[in-house]
Amino acid sequence: MDPRHAILFEPVTIGPKTLPNRFYQVPHASGFGSIKPRTQAAFRAIKAEGGWGGVCVEYAPVSRDADEVPAVAANMWDDADARGLALTAEAVHSHGALAGLELYHGGASSLNGESRAVRIAPSQLASQIQFASLAKEMTAADIARVQREWAEAARRGRDAGFDIIYVYGAHGYLFTQFMSPVTNRRTDGYGGSVAGRGRFWMETLEAVRSAVGGDCAVATRICVHGAGGLPGIDIEETLELVKMADDLVDLWDLTVGSWPEDSGTSRFYPEGSQRPWSHRVREATAKPIVAVGRYSSPDLMAEIVRSGAVDLIGAARQAIADPFLPRKIAEGRLDEIRECTGSNVCILREEAFNHVGCVQNATAGEEYRRGWHPEMFSRAANPGLAVLVVGAGPAGMECAVVLGRRGFSAVHLVEAEAEIGGRLRWTRRLPTLGDWGRITDWRAVQLGKLPGVEVITGRRLSAADVLGYGADIVVIATGSSWRGDGVQPGRVDRISGAGLAQVLTPEQVAAGKRPAGRNVIVYDTDGYYVAPGVAELLAGEDFSVTVVTTFPVLSPVSDETLEGEMLRADVHRRGIGVRRGLTITGIEVGSVRGHDEYGEPWSAECDAVVLVTQQASDDRLYRELTGDEAALARAGIQAVHVIGDAVAPRIISEAIFDGHRLGREIDRPDPSQPAPYRREHPDLTPGR
Amino acid sequence: MDPRHAILFEPVTIGPKTLPNRFYQVPHASGFGSIKPRTQAAFRAIKAEGGWGGVCVEYAPVSRDADEVPAVAANMWDDADARGLALTAEAVHSHGALAGLELYHGGASSLNGESRAVRIAPSQLASQIQFASLAKEMTAADIARVQREWAEAARRGRDAGFDIIYVYGAHGYLFTQFMSPVTNRRTDGYGGSVAGRGRFWMETLEAVRSAVGGDCAVATRICVHGAGGLPGIDIEETLELVKMADDLVDLWDLTVGSWPEDSGTSRFYPEGSQRPWSHRVREATAKPIVAVGRYSSPDLMAEIVRSGAVDLIGAARQAIADPFLPRKIAEGRLDEIRECTGSNVCILREEAFNHVGCVQNATAGEEYRRGWHPEMFSRAANPGLAVLVVGAGPAGMECAVVLGRRGFSAVHLVEAEAEIGGRLRWTRRLPTLGDWGRITDWRAVQLGKLPGVEVITGRRLSAADVLGYGADIVVIATGSSWRGDGVQPGRVDRISGAGLAQVLTPEQVAAGKRPAGRNVIVYDTDGYYVAPGVAELLAGEDFSVTVVTTFPVLSPVSDETLEGEMLRADVHRRGIGVRRGLTITGIEVGSVRGHDEYGEPWSAECDAVVLVTQQASDDRLYRELTGDEAALARAGIQAVHVIGDAVAPRIISEAIFDGHRLGREIDRPDPSQPAPYRREHPDLTPGR
Repeated sequence: MDPRHAILFEPVTIGPKTLPNRFYQVPHASGFGSIKPRTQAAFRAIKAEGGWGGVCVEYAPVSRDADEVPAVAANMWDDADARGLALTAEAVHSHGALAGLELYHGGASSLNGESRAVRIAPSQLASQIQFASLAKEMTAADIARVQREWAEAARRGRDAGFDIIYVYGAHGYLFTQFMSPVTNRRTDGYGGSVAGRGRFWMETLEAVRSAVGGDCAVATRICVHGAGGLPGIDIEETLELVKMADDLVDLWDLTVGSWPEDSGTSRFYPEGSQRPWSHRVREATAKPIVAVGRYSSPDLMAEIVRSGAVDLIGAARQAIADPFLPRKIAEGRLDEIRECTGSNVCILREEAFNHVGCVQNATAGEEYRRGWHPEMFSRAANPGLAVLVVGAGPAGMECAVVLGRRGFSAVHLVEAEAEIGGRLRWTRRLPTLGDWGRITDWRAVQLGKLPGVEVITGRRLSAADVLGYGADIVVIATGSSWRGDGVQPGRVDRISGAGLAQVLTPEQVAAGKRPAGRNVIVYDTDGYYVAPGVAELLAGEDFSVTVVTTFPVLSPVSDETLEGEMLRADVHRRGIGVRRGLTITGIEVGSVRGHDEYGEPWSAECDAVVLVTQQASDDRLYRELTGDEAALARAGIQAVHVIGDAVAPRIISEAIFDGHRLGREIDRPDPSQPAPYRREHPDLTPGR
Repeated sequence: MDPRHAILFEPVTIGPKTLPNRFYQVPHASGFGSIKPRTQAAFRAIKAEGGWGGVCVEYAPVSRDADEVPAVAANMWDDADARGLALTAEAVHSHGALAGLELYHGGASSLNGESRAVRIAPSQLASQIQFASLAKEMTAADIARVQREWAEAARRGRDAGFDIIYVYGAHGYLFTQFMSPVTNRRTDGYGGSVAGRGRFWMETLEAVRSAVGGDCAVATRICVHGAGGLPGIDIEETLELVKMADDLVDLWDLTVGSWPEDSGTSRFYPEGSQRPWSHRVREATAKPIVAVGRYSSPDLMAEIVRSGAVDLIGAARQAIADPFLPRKIAEGRLDEIRECTGSNVCILREEAFNHVGCVQNATAGEEYRRGWHPEMFSRAANPGLAVLVVGAGPAGMECAVVLGRRGFSAVHLVEAEAEIGGRLRWTRRLPTLGDWGRITDWRAVQLGKLPGVEVITGRRLSAADVLGYGADIVVIATGSSWRGDGVQPGRVDRISGAGLAQVLTPEQVAAGKRPAGRNVIVYDTDGYYVAPGVAELLAGEDFSVTVVTTFPVLSPVSDETLEGEMLRADVHRRGIGVRRGLTITGIEVGSVRGHDEYGEPWSAECDAVVLVTQQASDDRLYRELTGDEAALARAGIQAVHVIGDAVAPRIISEAIFDGHRLGREIDRPDPSQPAPYRREHPDLTPGR
């Protein structure tokens, strides 16, 4: 270990408990909640195994009117919930870490999709989540009931083995709704002054401390500045609240601003962007503080601990990207740290109520169901076979790394271009997307360390080349490319005029080809980062750019990565026009035409069009090879597999997952099909 | 029974099985799938008990790449799934009905949020559901595998006790993707001609028939016309397909058009709108046919059976609204039939991945967890107490019905206006919303039948009136109204100028108040039916109307009721302008001003503004009464409850649910809090 990092491995006492070190996985969603307790336990335990001294589960509703269905939460409503979550506490303990439970109430933000309960709030509010539907103003009885349920859930959590019990006060949920003067208009002693607005939170802290304070550390997560997106609370008021509650709190867990700001993507927020606010909390407390910042640099982590501003390095996304980050620091294996890209694919999956996933770490969430460990790889049954991986994009790079780790001694990763990375070669050069390059960078380093893997660039292989290569197994990872042929989703006919010289694909633009005139339309039917990225690239070169999209908003996928609002503001700030709900059906010299969402004709002048319409797998090599089984047999090739975008163009995380999976399962009977995974089922035992 | 309806109670043989009558609950989603097997079983069994001769569960994925997470499906992937769903087959059988299992593959529409599998499709397609992500073109091995998995799932279904096994071929899913020449571009014998495009479906029918054909009826659900929203299949081609497959099929289950068309709301589709297409299928087959049409009229049902066009009356929404429809027809209790409103609240809840719900039938989905039966009511513990229900809107009407059925002998339902219905008085008079009036109409009839309930209209009660009324229990159901004070969601400041004479509320417009000038802006921050309804009302009177909305689309909630696209087309057709992404912050004589989504200033001229911004509970009476406990005690009032929009303004279904719940639980210790409901938990048994 670098001695400068030793400070990160000091134990920290929080109330009656002691964390073994300063690495702390703050609560974050997983898609497992209390409905997949074994998957949850394995997902959290791997972080404890990787060295995180504190590991928390996600938000854990205390009340039926804090029901998060259809989102997946760790309900703590009854003893059956507690029995399930106890598996996590036990698994985390087995690796010497402390387990945290983030007890929660969403108030007006609760979804109540299962319970059908009326939502509650300090004042009667229109919801920003459920339209056409308002919340009930909480009565005194409601306040007392929620506090009682919080204390009951805390005792349940303690009995289930949790060491740290939260009073969750951040992110625009119930306590923040009480604390914001905008959402709290009460006149009954729970509103008005800071003390009044903070009273519900204070009383709940007291109730929880009284319920479990001798047995568990009591943590609270607060929004230091910006009130979780609600207006009206700034840092000065927070410091007052912290002083007011400090005796009741063993650990302060800090967030800043709204969720999209606090979990800001790398496009818009650098590492540690929260520091100007979170580091001021020390002014108000000497108790342990944990703050996040998408930290992946051990030097920076040590520096901020040394500064005294925080005691624990909090992480959600970085702990998903690399559960073994603490151990790698402890062992001085810094170049093995898988840095979070800050692309929020984890949140994209969680926001859509899916099983968690990570672009950097394909094993995230697969610990139980597929038995995948992020750092351990079983030796393959066939490691002596020579494997040729064609294409060093995300899928090919990942597959080669996994094959190397599984003991294959002759893996050749052959790339046609001069550098590896596939689509990341140009994606990482789009404005604001630089950190996505970490996907390539990490794999480039690991590939260099694997003695069984050789990376060959600048060599484009034909089918004949592959047949003559001498490989036993061939993995095709040739990716995909943007169709410039006018095919677009949901339409029979192609865009006429797509073959004109003024029509470009994103790859052509990325490769340096530029329109002749200045007036450019970027036509988007894809919905994610490519169209705004290309538009920003061209706008930065003084082209006059308008994005025309079929969607009702620019880049709807970016809403699921929490980037939508800021991406649109950024595009607007750069002077890019946006026209929504429009379909282009024809291109002529100097103009495009089509129709609006009602089918009314529409046209616009332009010098050039970039078609971000639809991708197609570059699978010609795969088809040529598999189309001639006799030739494969003659060449001694036992199997030809295809992975990543060459199977189907998808977002990068799925290509990497695909490559990883094939690497893990290449010695199974039929590696083309994913092995069945373990599932969790409802309890049918009579009487339960 | 009316003898004209006797034909509906004839048994119908389908392959090796016989349905006891012609009432058939077609497969439809519930939110229970295979994750809440007991809730599922009770939800389906109540329909069998109510007289439906065939009862099906929802779509049941056969493959891991037909994973519907985050939506809730009845997975049939392994024996544990089958054990759970067997509860439904058993429960349905216990009432003498047949149980159907709709085996399913979504192809390019699958979500795969849990499995992370690549989506498969006949050709590589951009998904209209998952953006930025395409499907894999199925190989011959994929085709064979899906067919094998279908047969395995069919055997599992048979062993679980299901009588009817589906090959689901409708609604834009995998088979429709094969059948549409737009989505199927294959050249390998599974594309091209009708026979080629239908081959995958035919082979799967053969595989299922061969797997279970002697033991189960084989049903197939097809889209007769419009290919489930995919272009390219019309009725003539369907007739060809039906003839081709007729030997393999025991029951033809018909849909028409896209899902939003087939499950069309009453706003845009009358009862039986599918008939022009579905009734032509008889030309191609003599086998039993089931078709839907949101039928609630027994005369019409008998007429279409008598015509020979169909053999079974299919229902999804009507069977949710009234599980006992068949028995009510059999017993001649036609005025007790709860007619579906066609508002698609069931789909709104299901589309958002929630527990099912129904505006007409508050017990839908509550059979297991709350033990509610749609027709049976336990006698209350306190039926001799006099109950005063103040307000005959949705919540008050429903509560009074339930109290009457629970044996209360002195329930007074007192309404201030001249007619009952609450907000439905004006809502049902908005263009296209007439069928929502069924909510009031059904309750008006039932209230008239209950000897213990008296309805009094035209009497507005003050707190003093209530105290002097002589009631033991008071239920406040005074509803809510639209704020005209400029308060809007998510903003501190009110809209300036909201007090000007040219500013109207929706209720004022509904009550006949009209703007002075012709140029009207309807400002919508609510997101559902009120703003377009008011706009259409005014546009019909030759006002020039523009809807200005903060949302990126007009009426986002209507997308969840499947109405969004047709509502927007309807608004456009009526000449109403729509300006999106705009916030109004001030109103002056002759204009409004505000800003766009980027914060750029915006203004527009207008003569008048209707503010569809935010509602407020009309709870003054409740607050006055509960604010003086001594007066309540003096008056002998034991309890004052509040229900419906007076608690929190919500959509009508939730107000009705609220009123129903209080009626069911009014004799519990604390009726203000919903009783805990039974839940289903994951199985923690070691080894399972």
